Amino acid sequence: MIEIDNTLSLSRAGIDTYRQPVVFMREDCHVCRAEGFAALTRIEVTLGDRSVIATLNVLTEGDWLPEDTAALSEEAWSVLNPEPGDRASFTHPEPPASVSAIRAKVYGDALEQDQFDAIIRDVLDRRLSDLDLAAFITACAGDRLSIPETIALTRSMQAAGTTLDWGSTAIYDKHCVGGLPGNRTTPIVVSIVAAAGLMIPKTSSRAITSPAGTADTMEVMAPVSLDAATLRRVVEAECGCIAWGGNLALSPADDVLIRIERPLDFDSDGQLVASVLSKKAAVGAKRVLIDVPVGPTAKVRSAETARALEQRLCAVGDAIGLTLSIHQSDGTAPVGRGIGPALEAQDVLAVLRRDEGAPADLRDRALDLAGALLDLAPETREAGGRAAAARLLDSGRAEAKFMAICEAQGGFSEPGEARYHAVVTSRAAGRLAAMDNRRIARTAKLAGAPRQKLAGLRLLARVGDRIDIGRPLFEIHAETLGELEYARSYAEAQCGLCTIEEDRE
Amino acid sequence: MIEIDNTLSLSRAGIDTYRQPVVFMREDCHVCRAEGFAALTRIEVTLGDRSVIATLNVLTEGDWLPEDTAALSEEAWSVLNPEPGDRASFTHPEPPASVSAIRAKVYGDALEQDQFDAIIRDVLDRRLSDLDLAAFITACAGDRLSIPETIALTRSMQAAGTTLDWGSTAIYDKHCVGGLPGNRTTPIVVSIVAAAGLMIPKTSSRAITSPAGTADTMEVMAPVSLDAATLRRVVEAECGCIAWGGNLALSPADDVLIRIERPLDFDSDGQLVASVLSKKAAVGAKRVLIDVPVGPTAKVRSAETARALEQRLCAVGDAIGLTLSIHQSDGTAPVGRGIGPALEAQDVLAVLRRDEGAPADLRDRALDLAGALLDLAPETREAGGRAAAARLLDSGRAEAKFMAICEAQGGFSEPGEARYHAVVTSRAAGRLAAMDNRRIARTAKLAGAPRQKLAGLRLLARVGDRIDIGRPLFEIHAETLGELEYARSYAEAQCGLCTIEEDRE
Repeated sequence: MIEIDNTLSLSRAGIDTYRQPVVFMREDCHVCRAEGFAALTRIEVTLGDRSVIATLNVLTEGDWLPEDTAALSEEAWSVLNPEPGDRASFTHPEPPASVSAIRAKVYGDALEQDQFDAIIRDVLDRRLSDLDLAAFITACAGDRLSIPETIALTRSMQAAGTTLDWGSTAIYDKHCVGGLPGNRTTPIVVSIVAAAGLMIPKTSSRAITSPAGTADTMEVMAPVSLDAATLRRVVEAECGCIAWGGNLALSPADDVLIRIERPLDFDSDGQLVASVLSKKAAVGAKRVLIDVPVGPTAKVRSAETARALEQRLCAVGDAIGLTLSIHQSDGTAPVGRGIGPALEAQDVLAVLRRDEGAPADLRDRALDLAGALLDLAPETREAGGRAAAARLLDSGRAEAKFMAICEAQGGFSEPGEARYHAVVTSRAAGRLAAMDNRRIARTAKLAGAPRQKLAGLRLLARVGDRIDIGRPLFEIHAETLGELEYARSYAEAQCGLCTIEEDRE
Repeated sequence: MIEIDNTLSLSRAGIDTYRQPVVFMREDCHVCRAEGFAALTRIEVTLGDRSVIATLNVLTEGDWLPEDTAALSEEAWSVLNPEPGDRASFTHPEPPASVSAIRAKVYGDALEQDQFDAIIRDVLDRRLSDLDLAAFITACAGDRLSIPETIALTRSMQAAGTTLDWGSTAIYDKHCVGGLPGNRTTPIVVSIVAAAGLMIPKTSSRAITSPAGTADTMEVMAPVSLDAATLRRVVEAECGCIAWGGNLALSPADDVLIRIERPLDFDSDGQLVASVLSKKAAVGAKRVLIDVPVGPTAKVRSAETARALEQRLCAVGDAIGLTLSIHQSDGTAPVGRGIGPALEAQDVLAVLRRDEGAPADLRDRALDLAGALLDLAPETREAGGRAAAARLLDSGRAEAKFMAICEAQGGFSEPGEARYHAVVTSRAAGRLAAMDNRRIARTAKLAGAPRQKLAGLRLLARVGDRIDIGRPLFEIHAETLGELEYARSYAEAQCGLCTIEEDRE
């Protein structure tokens, strides 16, 4: 047996590659030469009992890296967590076992439970490259996951995380499949349902392809990064919480997949259902309301697509022991006035506080959903959920519950206001017939949302309004002039963003 | 209009990210803050009339990058080619126009000519990220490109490159769809066909997923990076050449796609046909022989798959004006003895030189193919191509032609020998029933092929041989001990690499 020295000292590159482990090595170092490593080689870096598979970037010029040293990106550094002077070994990793399963899916085969288990295991161990993950996501896109495959993927994803145990208490939950800017009903619904005494430990995601996720919006008003013990304490005290799910490892594989879905800007019905229901099961929910907004520019574009999604949700729910109620809602236009974390938080607070100018559409949608959830409970069903929900909101009990939840999560803050604003006005006169959800969302994202909490849009006109030339349509909010200008010029160039029809009277 | 300073000085990071343009910027620099850039943002870097879209890596720690400076990876640096002190501007790029076409394909829609044109244009302009490219390749994998789509993709890819013009001369060409280690007939076939006076300007690729491409093998013996003028000079003098196609921009989009196909380790019938035939059309060929080896561990695994591929090849050939002859060959075992660039070159030379120990299977296959090509020519068809080919080889005229081509390309070199060898022996006795092409190829790649020209395998037994325990099966050649050891331990662990059946006498 030949003894090969394949070790190097570790240094911290201080480079953020967005969760992709990267290792930087000099082209002329003895390890690259001995092991035959070249740019983009996947390399297993081992330090004691910890290891990570990283993509190699080769240094061909310059001298920022000392000899006999390899530098790690932030993600690789945090996994290995080295001490000064530690030497790691660098080897060719075994080819990940699940690559053949991904290939089979790419070629159109149906996968079995053990194949999904292998893929999710390799996802969690970061054995798959970003390109492998993109191939897996693409191969499952559209309707290429069957219902049995969706059930298997859901089970794999749930099994890979922790599941909360609430004993015999009935746990409620809600989810919206998204695609509708400003549709921020969750904080209102949770406050109403918790005020009614039902237990709803709500976890939400951050935005994937939208300008704000519920966690992003809620974070403007209260801390959302709760650990499992804090979440349990909040829910046991207040019956509800509105937390970020990413801190709880409920479906940790999902967080890795989302990292690739985000730049690709597409996902699939199968992965959507597996992502949503694996998290609902992991949080311990048994009765779950799913809101599906339908509209030509929403995520779900037609009643037919909504039916297919409903069928898939219910089949998977049945298989894993969840009672689902699917609520189709109007998805033709943005909801409320604000789009972006802080701007949506202002709408939520206006509804809870019963402000005179509070957006009526957001209030109505929240009451519909809270009512449907109350109807899932034997103890509140007979009284009529919708009416009970309205009483809880109008009496101020929902507002009080929301403030109590915020306090329990770490304290309430009032949303701030962005530094720069720009108004976009109409160049035509007539009736505002439609707003394109996708381009509205894109404009808000160009303005900096959700990364910049205060950035986004405030709508100044509603579908159905009579519009004159020069009438303000919306206001762009941004934290930097570059983003303000970029969002404004995109919005000005999009003639289909707002459709204005000539009056024919 | 607000004036925003979005410029930084450029420095060379000296980091090889394998053709992916990457820009490194400090998290706290004024451009990141003004434009709202974060890790993995796609950024357009503009310097005068040159620009490149790069992926951002953010520096959160350390001080290797001075203030007011951005560093470029080798790929981005070579595109912009800055002078010392040059300042570039950094902006959000327009979303690439073809992203919606890729998304449509992911969801299963058929694409039109203009959509493929848009994708190929964005591929060439490097406007698509690696993840977008992986999604496009995956969405076309298996048989998800229809024949009309394959024709459209072929036309887009040809139109994106330069097409060689040979006037009214009939131009011949050959291609092998690959998947068979050691099947290096091309240098022999070109030598025979050119010796017969037919014009065959052969361009080949480097290995994509195999241990050696024809260009890798040929490069061991003569320069292959010819520009268009040199190629024309060689072919006009000698009737043939064996050049690397990558230097000629015949199908430059293909070179970008291959960069992603290689780590994904899969491609599609549609992309295969578009890649091959766009290059054949671009080289000016009119009469093309396609060799399709069929075997359970070859690229084409069954007669049925071969028929589907043949149908697709002929339909596309018809549409773009190529006369194709498809030749199915035995793809059940590796061909010749060597696997890897230099080891295959040794086999090629042995056949051309009529050495006593020259591999008979490689000679037979080369004569079959050269014969079929001669049969495509009216002037040689009647005499019988196979017999004419054998006469040209046996008389030494093919060898002389090969040496003349090598000289014209820049001079012949004799292949060298790798530094380290390791022999793998049989642990069973019986008849060698099969060798697994894929695992043989993988072993050769682990030994360093094709990057290390001298690395690979030399087979020491043939399918059908009687084997005793301890009999050498093959020899691993490597340039480093790390690779030798890694390939050896992989090969020893693969019990199905060589199938040895017990004798029943």
